[in-house]
Amino acid sequence: MKAARIHKYDESVPKGSLVVEEVEEPKIEHPLDVIVRIGAAGLCRTDIHIVEGQWQPIQDQDLTLLPYIPGHENAGWVEEVGSGVSNVSVGDTVICHPLMTCGLCRACRAGNDMHCENGAFPGISQDGGFADLLKTNARAVVKLDPILKPAEIAALADAGLTAYHAVKKALPLLYPGTKAVMIGAGGLGHIGIQSLKAMSPAEIIVLDPSEEALELAKEIGADQTVKVGDDHVNTVMEMTNGNGAEIVFDFVGERGAQNDAWNMTRPGGSHYVIGYGGVTEVPTIDIISTERNIVGNLVGTYNDLAELMTLTAEGKVKLHTTTYPLDAADDAMQDLNNGRLRGRGILIPEGAKDAA
Amino acid sequence: MKAARIHKYDESVPKGSLVVEEVEEPKIEHPLDVIVRIGAAGLCRTDIHIVEGQWQPIQDQDLTLLPYIPGHENAGWVEEVGSGVSNVSVGDTVICHPLMTCGLCRACRAGNDMHCENGAFPGISQDGGFADLLKTNARAVVKLDPILKPAEIAALADAGLTAYHAVKKALPLLYPGTKAVMIGAGGLGHIGIQSLKAMSPAEIIVLDPSEEALELAKEIGADQTVKVGDDHVNTVMEMTNGNGAEIVFDFVGERGAQNDAWNMTRPGGSHYVIGYGGVTEVPTIDIISTERNIVGNLVGTYNDLAELMTLTAEGKVKLHTTTYPLDAADDAMQDLNNGRLRGRGILIPEGAKDAA
Amino acid sequence: MKAARIHKYDESVPKGSLVVEEVEEPKIEHPLDVIVRIGAAGLCRTDIHIVEGQWQPIQDQDLTLLPYIPGHENAGWVEEVGSGVSNVSVGDTVICHPLMTCGLCRACRAGNDMHCENGAFPGISQDGGFADLLKTNARAVVKLDPILKPAEIAALADAGLTAYHAVKKALPLLYPGTKAVMIGAGGLGHIGIQSLKAMSPAEIIVLDPSEEALELAKEIGADQTVKVGDDHVNTVMEMTNGNGAEIVFDFVGERGAQNDAWNMTRPGGSHYVIGYGGVTEVPTIDIISTERNIVGNLVGTYNDLAELMTLTAEGKVKLHTTTYPLDAADDAMQDLNNGRLRGRGILIPEGAKDAA
Amino acid sequence: MKAARIHKYDESVPKGSLVVEEVEEPKIEHPLDVIVRIGAAGLCRTDIHIVEGQWQPIQDQDLTLLPYIPGHENAGWVEEVGSGVSNVSVGDTVICHPLMTCGLCRACRAGNDMHCENGAFPGISQDGGFADLLKTNARAVVKLDPILKPAEIAALADAGLTAYHAVKKALPLLYPGTKAVMIGAGGLGHIGIQSLKAMSPAEIIVLDPSEEALELAKEIGADQTVKVGDDHVNTVMEMTNGNGAEIVFDFVGERGAQNDAWNMTRPGGSHYVIGYGGVTEVPTIDIISTERNIVGNLVGTYNDLAELMTLTAEGKVKLHTTTYPLDAADDAMQDLNNGRLRGRGILIPEGAKDAA
Repeated sequence: MKAARIHKYDESVPKGSLVVEEVEEPKIEHPLDVIVRIGAAGLCRTDIHIVEGQWQPIQDQDLTLLPYIPGHENAGWVEEVGSGVSNVSVGDTVICHPLMTCGLCRACRAGNDMHCENGAFPGISQDGGFADLLKTNARAVVKLDPILKPAEIAALADAGLTAYHAVKKALPLLYPGTKAVMIGAGGLGHIGIQSLKAMSPAEIIVLDPSEEALELAKEIGADQTVKVGDDHVNTVMEMTNGNGAEIVFDFVGERGAQNDAWNMTRPGGSHYVIGYGGVTEVPTIDIISTERNIVGNLVGTYNDLAELMTLTAEGKVKLHTTTYPLDAADDAMQDLNNGRLRGRGILIPEGAKDAA
Repeated sequence: MKAARIHKYDESVPKGSLVVEEVEEPKIEHPLDVIVRIGAAGLCRTDIHIVEGQWQPIQDQDLTLLPYIPGHENAGWVEEVGSGVSNVSVGDTVICHPLMTCGLCRACRAGNDMHCENGAFPGISQDGGFADLLKTNARAVVKLDPILKPAEIAALADAGLTAYHAVKKALPLLYPGTKAVMIGAGGLGHIGIQSLKAMSPAEIIVLDPSEEALELAKEIGADQTVKVGDDHVNTVMEMTNGNGAEIVFDFVGERGAQNDAWNMTRPGGSHYVIGYGGVTEVPTIDIISTERNIVGNLVGTYNDLAELMTLTAEGKVKLHTTTYPLDAADDAMQDLNNGRLRGRGILIPEGAKDAA
Repeated sequence: MKAARIHKYDESVPKGSLVVEEVEEPKIEHPLDVIVRIGAAGLCRTDIHIVEGQWQPIQDQDLTLLPYIPGHENAGWVEEVGSGVSNVSVGDTVICHPLMTCGLCRACRAGNDMHCENGAFPGISQDGGFADLLKTNARAVVKLDPILKPAEIAALADAGLTAYHAVKKALPLLYPGTKAVMIGAGGLGHIGIQSLKAMSPAEIIVLDPSEEALELAKEIGADQTVKVGDDHVNTVMEMTNGNGAEIVFDFVGERGAQNDAWNMTRPGGSHYVIGYGGVTEVPTIDIISTERNIVGNLVGTYNDLAELMTLTAEGKVKLHTTTYPLDAADDAMQDLNNGRLRGRGILIPEGAKDAA
Repeated sequence: MKAARIHKYDESVPKGSLVVEEVEEPKIEHPLDVIVRIGAAGLCRTDIHIVEGQWQPIQDQDLTLLPYIPGHENAGWVEEVGSGVSNVSVGDTVICHPLMTCGLCRACRAGNDMHCENGAFPGISQDGGFADLLKTNARAVVKLDPILKPAEIAALADAGLTAYHAVKKALPLLYPGTKAVMIGAGGLGHIGIQSLKAMSPAEIIVLDPSEEALELAKEIGADQTVKVGDDHVNTVMEMTNGNGAEIVFDFVGERGAQNDAWNMTRPGGSHYVIGYGGVTEVPTIDIISTERNIVGNLVGTYNDLAELMTLTAEGKVKLHTTTYPLDAADDAMQDLNNGRLRGRGILIPEGAKDAA
């Protein structure tokens, strides 16, 4: 089959970082294995970080993974199943939860499968979806209404799912009259805005440095927008009667956003960390005297993904995308790395005619 | 192997209802199958109801199950595993969750595996544990500290688990100063009392018609006891300042207990139904004017069972049992049916030397 | 001042049941008293039940209340305050929570003020709002944005609040893909539909015997409607894949609705009782084998009312009303009693020019 | 009356920092005022910080408070009540919640009265309890069983309440088999240990640099103890199978404890900040990749205090104290400042014969 692979790590992400070539097809080995014919695979900033080698110390300590297929936001059709698989059949349209979980540990059984003790992560810890075929397992595939097109949803498998998960956790705190601040209206943020709008009566205040992003934010659910740079923390404090917001979702997590997020959080409120890169620094007296919380957010659960698919099928959540043929995977990566990519980049294998 | 089987349904539960005989051993058929060598199997009133044919309309509509092995409270050692099993190995000591769940449906993934859409129930819907060997699956076996003896814990697999599950659900409502009423200090109730004592600061009031049961209740954690028959509802109302208790656990559910339970529940409180048999009748005006709830309780989850095993290993929960060799299964059933059995009856196969 | 009073109880609710006459004005007696100039007062079926004497055994055991002013859904402007009142000032627009609570008991302090141990209920246990002036207390008045007109909101004080409260309690169980059934699209139901739509992604199925009510239900948020009488329980079971709904809100509670509600509730789901009059009858085996719950619902809290006012100010919840001058109070009651009243009846005192 | 007052701020806390002298008695001014005859007042490290002037920028910006009576952990008997007070009568034994709350704002009504928008704090923002009499309000007094002695409980009003509050918030996360780490077995910690033991089945691991404190910790409920300094973080990691604990309560919050606490928190777990002084510094990637939380904790609510009083009356929580006559207030402060005070210091006015 065809696949786009990384052959070496290189901080400069040069042309040719992704090499499209013929590779061997994956095979069913375990009774719960599932092989998916890829319809579409989302390209993520994490894929650039992988090329740069940022993940090599975690993912590939002995440099044994290379050459390696990235791609952790995958959707397509079931191609083959192991002998123990009962939840999907060959031909089913599916989106792949990024984590292959065991279903046996306490976390999997308690509804926290993203904390599975035995998980594997195709596209990060083993071959991913920039290819014709992907091997995953029965617990990772969400069967979809065939009207959903892989190209329109693949990127919900990780970026969308993470935003949805954070929003859903916060819902019990967002009753009528409360305010939710969202920092960053990009890939994660624009799913976060739509998810929150669909599930909550809270007033949504969106921050971003880009006027264009704020314009889009308004169209998809923001009640108010604030341009980052225009004294934005004070502006938000004024919008919240000097108190700050009950919940601040920080989809950026670096370049000062993590401190702004804390400073815009109301006493008794919570600062949800979703983006990453920076360091949070808070005096403990500020934490206790206001009883504020800092809440970590990982990717969502399988059930979260199924719920997000429901919102998508109902038209309440929509992704903005640009598609590339899998053959042009390296062009897509160069475009993403150079800020030329609008919306989420989606790779489509040649054979996947019905994907878009 | 040897097994005790039912050959026909008979309301009178005559001698010979359980026939101990040679039967074929179960075989691994599915990659997640697990065969357990039984160390001990609990005898439950439900087993009598099965002999009586009460379950036949649900369990055995076409009379194709007979002859049939009951036994749904099982513990022992792993004998053989299917090719996809990774959580236990041959020789491990295990207790069996009564339900074989799929791990793939929403309920299994959400921490509600007792609501699995594809579950099977050995001892009710297929052959159970009154035998040398039992076939179950990977998701049903809880690996135990080898210091736990099957005979001491088997009956926790269903009766104990149900009581624990109800108690755990109620904990958030039981802060210091609240009162919990428990109706019935028998098989379920005596685990309920111990579980609640281990996990909550609530005052525990136990009701039972038997002085002996109330005596035991006091030893294992009851703060107050009330004999059923001695104007018990009014006595409880006085103990609760005329308000009733925040939580009433009804382990009986018939012969009027279900109405007493409701009447002893405080405004804003909850009546937990665990035992069954009777009919609950409540005017809707009573429900809304006091904002009381009636809460259903099924068997607990796999994680609940693991937690109950922890309490048991710590010595916080103990079962009171009488053991019989598997060969005497029918004697045990006759004793249970005639009120001659003290504590929970436990059947032990001949080869299970280390079970007790 | 002018007031509409009941002088005697009479099951037939004859003309003249409400007598408009001159009465003495209420006076500040306790430091937390607040006197409100009534802008609008909602007329409720409970007011008819009071005339009929249904409440007399509870409300007026010694017949000492008569002659008596009903009216428990009140809004207007603060006229006078006691020496300890700090949260409102003379002239403020307010809606009155129906219960005067103490602020000192555990329930008041725990956010369950509708369970206040020392509450009084103007319009039921003391003079209510069918008058120029009403005496209530500081803890009962919600200060409003002056753009809200008393006539447009008064009826939210009790009927709307009860519906909102039930809906809000159920939100954590209503994620994308779940279904909520609402029985009864009348006074309570139409606020319930709008509240649920504003706060949840669940699919809403509304049942009512009136085509007109179902038509309105669709306009304000119902995703599907079912006419009661057209094999409605089976229709709902088909709409829910044979499982029933996660939550069934029963705004009727009598004439069989209470049993239909239970039968349409999914295993693991909850039947919310809001309407009343009938008797719920359920075998305990049905409760435990499906782990379903029956949940009581009283009027909402003060904070619930403030939240509902926010939804109203945002245009997400709207009442359908017909107004009458206070002088025509008896006509309004006759119209309600004879089914001639469309929407909620609202009484407006002569001086309350800005109320509508 | 007699009172111990601060006349000037001085970082060195010299002898004579607290001057015992005759002052005017407080008077009822507001209808909800309550005057309490002090039976016992706890001495807290915060009182030293007040003398040092650390709180002056917050508490006394214009230096108008001086001379000033500290003391925010008070218990005694009701001496006089305002005209609107209905929950206590003259002569009642009471403990004083440290915050005088309004009962009217959203926080007070929602069960978060420690976030009251209009609160006052005797002993910090106005005269406190190092005196014969204290003025507080109706919402701050918890009526006690007269068997409780003021001297034995006064210090639960703030230090104990804060520890209890944090522990109670964490309970839903502490099921059988989980582990809770507590850093610091001093004033707050020893109440935290007892409270957790009384309400939870979790294994308790206590850290402290003092052998004596660890000895006490074991007696009152610690399952394991670890001496700070003996490679304590690694020791705890070994005790928790390399994962860390589900909950880490940090009663210290400075001198590195805040970082140790984070590092000992398990993926998916929570680090509860209670003590203060240091700065928490955490990379956002650590927060998101493990989905850990940092949870702020303020003093508890009024209902929390009532619950803690119940545990105390039941003998489940005991304070270790040293008493001083109010006349020796300055000696007590010198002893505390110089590390000569064992247990919590308690001041007792001359007339309060029944206090201890």
